Amino acid sequence: MNKERPIILITNDDGITAPGIRALVNAVQDLGDIVVVAPDSPQSGMGHAITIGKPLRLHPVNVIEGVQCWQTSGTPVDCVKLARDKVLHRKPTICLSGINHGANHSINVIYSGTMSAAMEAAIEGIPSVGFSLLDYNFDADFTIASKVVRAVTKRMLEHSLQEHTLLNVNIPKVDEKDFKGIKFCRQAHAKWAEDFDERIDPRGEKYFWMVGKFINLDRGSDTDVEALKNGFASIVPIRFDLTDIQTKNKLEKEWNGIL
Amino acid sequence: MNKERPIILITNDDGITAPGIRALVNAVQDLGDIVVVAPDSPQSGMGHAITIGKPLRLHPVNVIEGVQCWQTSGTPVDCVKLARDKVLHRKPTICLSGINHGANHSINVIYSGTMSAAMEAAIEGIPSVGFSLLDYNFDADFTIASKVVRAVTKRMLEHSLQEHTLLNVNIPKVDEKDFKGIKFCRQAHAKWAEDFDERIDPRGEKYFWMVGKFINLDRGSDTDVEALKNGFASIVPIRFDLTDIQTKNKLEKEWNGIL
Repeated sequence: MNKERPIILITNDDGITAPGIRALVNAVQDLGDIVVVAPDSPQSGMGHAITIGKPLRLHPVNVIEGVQCWQTSGTPVDCVKLARDKVLHRKPTICLSGINHGANHSINVIYSGTMSAAMEAAIEGIPSVGFSLLDYNFDADFTIASKVVRAVTKRMLEHSLQEHTLLNVNIPKVDEKDFKGIKFCRQAHAKWAEDFDERIDPRGEKYFWMVGKFINLDRGSDTDVEALKNGFASIVPIRFDLTDIQTKNKLEKEWNGIL
Repeated sequence: MNKERPIILITNDDGITAPGIRALVNAVQDLGDIVVVAPDSPQSGMGHAITIGKPLRLHPVNVIEGVQCWQTSGTPVDCVKLARDKVLHRKPTICLSGINHGANHSINVIYSGTMSAAMEAAIEGIPSVGFSLLDYNFDADFTIASKVVRAVTKRMLEHSLQEHTLLNVNIPKVDEKDFKGIKFCRQAHAKWAEDFDERIDPRGEKYFWMVGKFINLDRGSDTDVEALKNGFASIVPIRFDLTDIQTKNKLEKEWNGIL
């Protein structure tokens, strides 16, 4: 590898054959040396899961012409760990995760394997970004997403963020003429109302499929959900220090002597 | 169920047969009506994973005398969702997760199934606490942990926290005479340096076990790691709005016109 060129680690949670990861490679291929390390099967909703109870596999594969690609049997977070330690043997310059097929705005950042991979890189001190397109279709149009990916990645390579911060970038599903540009946002307060689909298997036993309805509880104008609704790509800077300092200070006073 | 008594939902990530969940039930059994919904097998390191690609099982089981227990084939987060929607059919008064066998201080909050279950409850608006004991042994002594669990749970039932905040409580492995009480802390900045154990299977194929060395990068005196080292039980209030507002405000100015 050319030492002067950035090393760009690419991963995702939809698996190494997903169109989104190919779109991500295409968007940044000339900006550095690309190494792809991604799951061998879809890993949506895996959150920050790691594989500790069973062994991991890691194999080089030919899936994208001219690009070094590896598939693993692990989670998106495992991919970043294996890439760092067993493929690159050092930190990449940047880690890009995605392009996810479907939204990772608001509370989805918590459940998303795509965003957890980016967070794992940030924990490791690698500048990182997760990209998601609000279109689940296999033949989704990545034109606008690719422009956003390229602009954000170039900027990150020129002026890195503060260490241990990562970006959650979501791209709306709109025609090019209706795309409004990028907007920095906060994570909308939202949740999923689960409504399990209850079925009976051929042996008479009950089982459940998780389904869910997205509920935005946030009426703020500065959220990612609102920006996307108005045709903007949303960018939310994300932290992994989860301490709620205000509550810490409050409880220090109020909980005195409970034990 | 008696409507006047609190409904206490209990879950964990070590599985329904773990001694820690039994210790948790014993510690709070007289404080309300207990319902246990926990994974049917160990789910450590599952983070905030949810099960969307395969169906879920949910069965009542007799594992703790006189206590309503259910096991699921899902993750800790799935357990909370199933408990809410398919067992209780309403919100419990409080959700307690644990007692985990092993530390969930510092960065471990991100990987922990125990803490993710508590976080899922908080997303749902249920007051929640995750408890972890710094002792991996099957025959760990839960005496101090039980006292902490009881004091924290009683306080939470009397004066609930602000909605959507949860607590990460870790208990040191010390003799009773050396236990110093509780301390409110912030999450220590730390990481795991992975050092994959590389092996060859009987068919000659390479595989990896994830092992790792914990590295505390934080020298602050106000962290959970430091409190535990000094014989305190640490309590870190946790938020799931991951927005880094300072970086958002900074980038809004500096990234103007990148696209």
